[in-house]
Amino acid sequence: MAAPDTVVNLDDKLARIDEHWSPMIVGQINDLHVKLAKVEGEFVWHSHPDTDEFFLVRSGRLVIEMRGRDAVTIGPGEFFVVPRGVEHRPVADRECHLLLLEPAGVVNTGDAPESGLTAGQEWI
Amino acid sequence: MAAPDTVVNLDDKLARIDEHWSPMIVGQINDLHVKLAKVEGEFVWHSHPDTDEFFLVRSGRLVIEMRGRDAVTIGPGEFFVVPRGVEHRPVADRECHLLLLEPAGVVNTGDAPESGLTAGQEWI
Repeated sequence: MAAPDTVVNLDDKLARIDEHWSPMIVGQINDLHVKLAKVEGEFVWHSHPDTDEFFLVRSGRLVIEMRGRDAVTIGPGEFFVVPRGVEHRPVADRECHLLLLEPAGVVNTGDAPESGLTAGQEWI
Repeated sequence: MAAPDTVVNLDDKLARIDEHWSPMIVGQINDLHVKLAKVEGEFVWHSHPDTDEFFLVRSGRLVIEMRGRDAVTIGPGEFFVVPRGVEHRPVADRECHLLLLEPAGVVNTGDAPESGLTAGQEWI
């Protein structure tokens, strides 16, 4: 676990992540975890019934497809909040680096069946 | 108020802020507001007894002095979380652009007496 009271450099932490779709915890604000992830390709369709989900793109480009809504494209220095309950699927044509915010304990694959994409709750 | 379900570009929003130490709300994740601010000079000493406070530097450099602890310096692409209850004072020698996270309703000057530095709760 990262020491609290430490300045966290996003790129230094991202350099320690070598797996796609495997968000790592790098900080906490109240009950919310700050996570970093590298993603590429298509994730699974899922939703989080009880929480909004914040995506801030650090590098690359992320498309978030949403059931019944237009997809959004998020570039570097941009964020988007997927409202709770909205079924969505993140897709990145090329590797994309993300900062995520979600409550401690939230599983990345939401209500989708557990799979190889389901990540743990690991601090780096 | 910014439309929800919109991609937010940090620099576009920052360009609309012309006052220092006056955080503007640009998003919401559950009960937490995402805010952007331009700061320069010294803020007031204050603390937030009930909430941690997240500072992510977009450009420039922010020093956070803390009572009884070493100050930290946060540069671009770095964040720091001031734990709840810790008295602190942000200081920026030159203009610094920040993304902040704090619960909806939290006053920027915390427990310090209301002053010209006390900001409203405005969406842009």
